[in-house]
Amino acid sequence: MICFGIDPGIGLMGYGVVRQHGGDLTALDYGAIPTEPGRPVALRLLDLFGELDAKIKEHGPDVIAVERLFFGQNRTTAEMVFQARGVALLASARAGLVPYEPKPSEVKLSVCGNGAADKRQVQGMVRRILNLERDPKPDDAADALAVAITGLSLAVYDR
Amino acid sequence: MICFGIDPGIGLMGYGVVRQHGGDLTALDYGAIPTEPGRPVALRLLDLFGELDAKIKEHGPDVIAVERLFFGQNRTTAEMVFQARGVALLASARAGLVPYEPKPSEVKLSVCGNGAADKRQVQGMVRRILNLERDPKPDDAADALAVAITGLSLAVYDR
Repeated sequence: MICFGIDPGIGLMGYGVVRQHGGDLTALDYGAIPTEPGRPVALRLLDLFGELDAKIKEHGPDVIAVERLFFGQNRTTAEMVFQARGVALLASARAGLVPYEPKPSEVKLSVCGNGAADKRQVQGMVRRILNLERDPKPDDAADALAVAITGLSLAVYDR
Repeated sequence: MICFGIDPGIGLMGYGVVRQHGGDLTALDYGAIPTEPGRPVALRLLDLFGELDAKIKEHGPDVIAVERLFFGQNRTTAEMVFQARGVALLASARAGLVPYEPKPSEVKLSVCGNGAADKRQVQGMVRRILNLERDPKPDDAADALAVAITGLSLAVYDR
């Protein structure tokens, strides 16, 4: 089973693709899709949608998971990020999948056994679980891999 | 010149299509696209995207305008509405147009000459400007027509 995990963002949209085979989890791909800050938001969303759609088609996942977000202090950023998240949800639905939507605390709990783990702990555990030679970078990609691992564990409960 | 105006929402996405010919403004189409409240949000966004995309193709606008939104008290609603707005911006970009993004106060100012006008005043002025036999309903459609009228006036300044 393959899960495509997404950490939504407007400047960087993290993605991570994890395959589960028995007890083994393997990272098939991960990274972060960048958009140009000065570009109109509609075009940045178009760029994100095009890249996400292509990545999802490339990997043909069985499951997609899109992390939930919380509002920060900055409302303008929150608006942009929720707009980007809408596009990520749309890309999932266009691939015929209703995504899981784990909260950040659920992702931390699933990967670290602790819903209040920090970024470094998540990165370290993702590296260990996926048997990677180094910490996955950037943070958005590491987070998306954690979201994908969480998606796989949620899918097991739904069987 | 034809402007496609959008009043973003998750339960109802308002749209209004206005043609300008010399000094005459005519409403070509208006309404509100509904989504099912109990349906997963990714599928509601897919429904909205499909309908919007079809309506935009049907009318082939020269200009698109998507109203800005403000956060209300309810964060869950705000999240949903911004996600829907992201899909509206994406639909515009997919049609090859960078949308205007007027604020609610700019729309009221453009249509009523008063940035603090209330919903009834906007509806009444939209009806008068477009020479409609009755007030356009629902509110989302009336608002979208006001957004389209604003988009046309913004386009004039850009020439």
